[in-house]
Amino acid sequence: MPESRPVDPYPPLAWSGWGDPTQVPLLPDAVRELLAQGLGVRAPATGAASLEAVTLPEPRLAGSVRQALESVIGPEHVLADHESRVRHTRGKSTPDLLRIRAGEASDAPDLVLVPGSHEEVIELLALCSSHRVAVVPFGGGTSVVGGLAPEADGFSGLAAIDLRRMNALLSVDGVSRLAELEPGLRGPEAEALLGEHGYTIGHFPQSFEYATVGGFAAARSSGQASAGYGRFDELVLGLRLATPVGTLALGRAPRSAAGPDLRQLVLGSEGAFGVITGLTVAVRPTPAERVYEGWRLGSFKEGMAVLRALVQDGPRPTVLRLSDEAETGLNLARPSEVGGPAAGGVLAIVGYEGTAQDVATRRSAGTEVLSGAGGQLEQGAGEHWARERYRGPYLRDALLAAGALVETLETVTFWSSVPRLYEAVSGALRESLSARGTPPVVLCHVSHVYPAGASLYFTVACAQTDDPVAQWRAAKASASDAILDAGGSITHHHGVGTDHREWYGREIGELGVGLLQAVKARLDPAGIMNPGVLVSPSD
Amino acid sequence: MPESRPVDPYPPLAWSGWGDPTQVPLLPDAVRELLAQGLGVRAPATGAASLEAVTLPEPRLAGSVRQALESVIGPEHVLADHESRVRHTRGKSTPDLLRIRAGEASDAPDLVLVPGSHEEVIELLALCSSHRVAVVPFGGGTSVVGGLAPEADGFSGLAAIDLRRMNALLSVDGVSRLAELEPGLRGPEAEALLGEHGYTIGHFPQSFEYATVGGFAAARSSGQASAGYGRFDELVLGLRLATPVGTLALGRAPRSAAGPDLRQLVLGSEGAFGVITGLTVAVRPTPAERVYEGWRLGSFKEGMAVLRALVQDGPRPTVLRLSDEAETGLNLARPSEVGGPAAGGVLAIVGYEGTAQDVATRRSAGTEVLSGAGGQLEQGAGEHWARERYRGPYLRDALLAAGALVETLETVTFWSSVPRLYEAVSGALRESLSARGTPPVVLCHVSHVYPAGASLYFTVACAQTDDPVAQWRAAKASASDAILDAGGSITHHHGVGTDHREWYGREIGELGVGLLQAVKARLDPAGIMNPGVLVSPSD
Repeated sequence: MPESRPVDPYPPLAWSGWGDPTQVPLLPDAVRELLAQGLGVRAPATGAASLEAVTLPEPRLAGSVRQALESVIGPEHVLADHESRVRHTRGKSTPDLLRIRAGEASDAPDLVLVPGSHEEVIELLALCSSHRVAVVPFGGGTSVVGGLAPEADGFSGLAAIDLRRMNALLSVDGVSRLAELEPGLRGPEAEALLGEHGYTIGHFPQSFEYATVGGFAAARSSGQASAGYGRFDELVLGLRLATPVGTLALGRAPRSAAGPDLRQLVLGSEGAFGVITGLTVAVRPTPAERVYEGWRLGSFKEGMAVLRALVQDGPRPTVLRLSDEAETGLNLARPSEVGGPAAGGVLAIVGYEGTAQDVATRRSAGTEVLSGAGGQLEQGAGEHWARERYRGPYLRDALLAAGALVETLETVTFWSSVPRLYEAVSGALRESLSARGTPPVVLCHVSHVYPAGASLYFTVACAQTDDPVAQWRAAKASASDAILDAGGSITHHHGVGTDHREWYGREIGELGVGLLQAVKARLDPAGIMNPGVLVSPSD
Repeated sequence: MPESRPVDPYPPLAWSGWGDPTQVPLLPDAVRELLAQGLGVRAPATGAASLEAVTLPEPRLAGSVRQALESVIGPEHVLADHESRVRHTRGKSTPDLLRIRAGEASDAPDLVLVPGSHEEVIELLALCSSHRVAVVPFGGGTSVVGGLAPEADGFSGLAAIDLRRMNALLSVDGVSRLAELEPGLRGPEAEALLGEHGYTIGHFPQSFEYATVGGFAAARSSGQASAGYGRFDELVLGLRLATPVGTLALGRAPRSAAGPDLRQLVLGSEGAFGVITGLTVAVRPTPAERVYEGWRLGSFKEGMAVLRALVQDGPRPTVLRLSDEAETGLNLARPSEVGGPAAGGVLAIVGYEGTAQDVATRRSAGTEVLSGAGGQLEQGAGEHWARERYRGPYLRDALLAAGALVETLETVTFWSSVPRLYEAVSGALRESLSARGTPPVVLCHVSHVYPAGASLYFTVACAQTDDPVAQWRAAKASASDAILDAGGSITHHHGVGTDHREWYGREIGELGVGLLQAVKARLDPAGIMNPGVLVSPSD
């Protein structure tokens, strides 16, 4: 087959918020009332800066280096204009949004490089390495952990490598059910191109609409349908990494005993070892049927026991998610209805995707398990969740603009430690924010399940103090300490970036960090690749 | 729970063959006739050496070093007697057996160290590192790829670390379905201890009776029931590695986005980075029912299409295996009946394990798929396979003693490349051995299946030449070249060892090898850990 590309490339993310600015909801008066009365949120004194008013650092890169880079990919693919630099500054965490809305873009790259092929990336990296130019690989720009904010001090400059032009579906192998993709394809683009062949990847994280497949791989993404399709790192069976010292090409088979699985060393490397320029991913036939149900269960504890039973003993649904009492009460599973009437118990979302027969069989068995546990089917809740599944970040935009501090964080551990982890993280967030005079609401849901454990996804909202970035940093540090103390992993699917580096180092220990530094030194001897992401730049 | 240990530790492997010497079958006259007439096999002129007559190298290790090692674990756990040294020489490949039966034990360790704890292993490795003593971790001793034959030239000596005393089941977490195991537990021992709690690991490779769980992890083992339970590297969710520079402890959750999955860097490291001293593995309830069926299908090609349909679209059996025409004809799926009447077509083994209801559901759907493809259920063939599933290596012992050269090798690739790989490897083996005047029979079966691909397991038999070790090395090299040329991985479940190192290097490329060397240099700066395994010792 000839390679295919998206006909209408997806629009870029809003520079100072999530996605399409026209999609940000208006907050109902009831919600504003609730924010003011319940959390003491006050409208901010100043509005957000305009794009033009954002302050950029002076470009540092020498003209001769820029010319050398231009000679590789053409001057038209080397961008240094104000808007391009602003749009490639950091990612989409709440601190990122707060800072860029305040007009602060001190982490902006000097240049944005837009290569068209693996070979061009290889040449760019070799040049940047020899001129000590720090490089941040840039896919969808959706990192929420500082993965796009490298520590470029001490380098001669910072270049973003934007992968938007490398967005082809290269091949489909229907016998092996594999597809070769370039990294710059956004989620919906990849699904549309594969859909023409009758396939899906089945990877639908909340960032789906804007994140790229290269980013899914680099950050070990996990989607909302991971119970059925698996995590992205399980779906990647082959990959190509461009590094400053050459190419690493891996994956001759689904699994192998040929030494350590080096694919699993590249997956999750977050640009610190190189740029992922090609992926071979497992695909499945587009499901004939997709059904999502909402189930009301007695309590978070009871609900977790049901989820555990489903994932351990089956039938395994494709989507499994469970809100705690607070999240269920606030209806955050339905962002457009926040503040609506609360009901008792907790809400689980249970989805089935597959052939009609497969869905019917699993659904019937699943219904038996859920009913047997006292669950009540809630009409419309599943469909509602499916319709609203990518809307959460837009709600954050509206809440931030209204003066609230809103952010999410997540972790994962084995089932027997989940209750302890839940209490520890909720408690740490409440304590830290209350101590600053801004008592929060802390909501949680189980976002992903495995036979051996589950991830917890927390949403926090409170009033902003005068320095909301510092306010959140302190709360996040407390929560991160609590995660490690309770035996959890510092991140289930957001990644490490620069924000989690300190706790990540504690999680994998000195030797674990040493390993990564040794690998980085081999692939990136000048240390230019996303410095400060995963490991300290100067260690 | 208190830790538990095997009541009756499993007997050691025969020093010059597989397992329990009393289990080696007598070859029926028909088989001897077939070997003589069909392959020109002649009885060897000389019999195997006795244990006492095996020639060992002079011990090289200084007495002071030995004393230092004794001070860590006690002199009673430092063995240097003739039998201990012979029993820790190499593994169980055909060349290993041919050499040891000829009385040649040039790779024997100077000492066998038998530590009792992680802390003792750490101390031993630090001592060996400072005295430049090469170390080979020794579990079940079942390697068939030279994984127990380090290249210890240039070191002050060679010590085997035998993990037999580290054989406890430390804990069972029934909520998370996890068990903590020490590495020295053999397969049946681990299953017996877990069985008391109602659990199984579900890992049953052909080496099951003698290999250890630590070895399963170090070599990325895959069992006969991998379609149902997964590979061993998928079952390991936590591990502890003792290295010359300290401890690496990994695994706080089933899956995580906290950087690269470093567990997958230790799994498959084959002792080259350190000694695995603890494992947390996923367990499942002991299946209430186990059913194995034999299905006769039209051809290897047709059979592969059926296996692919089952693994891609379900129902997924627990065991899936398919012999090609030659193997089916020779009945090698039934070692005790080799030479019996051959039937047409090919034989698939299809097994289901689980609850009664789960087995009934999957079996009924599987029967529909198999019957729909023209398959005929073969009475008794499934049960026969299950009874004989660990007997293959005993048959090899008998055939080697009769003067035949018999060995196996395996590979894996994506489904669309499997036919090409099958032809290439069969052809290379036939060509190489025929060119030496010993035309072989080459048998093959699909041993493991994945949605995206399958492994091919080849058995080769021919007459021995005067130098059967060189004869096999040449054939194996041809087959290995063919594997790489056809896009396969050099090993699906046997591992790399020293035998596959050259081809492994070609498979992962210069940067891949460089990565491993960098990791090794960090964890094992003196290069003492299993030198020559995975990567060259001196690079």
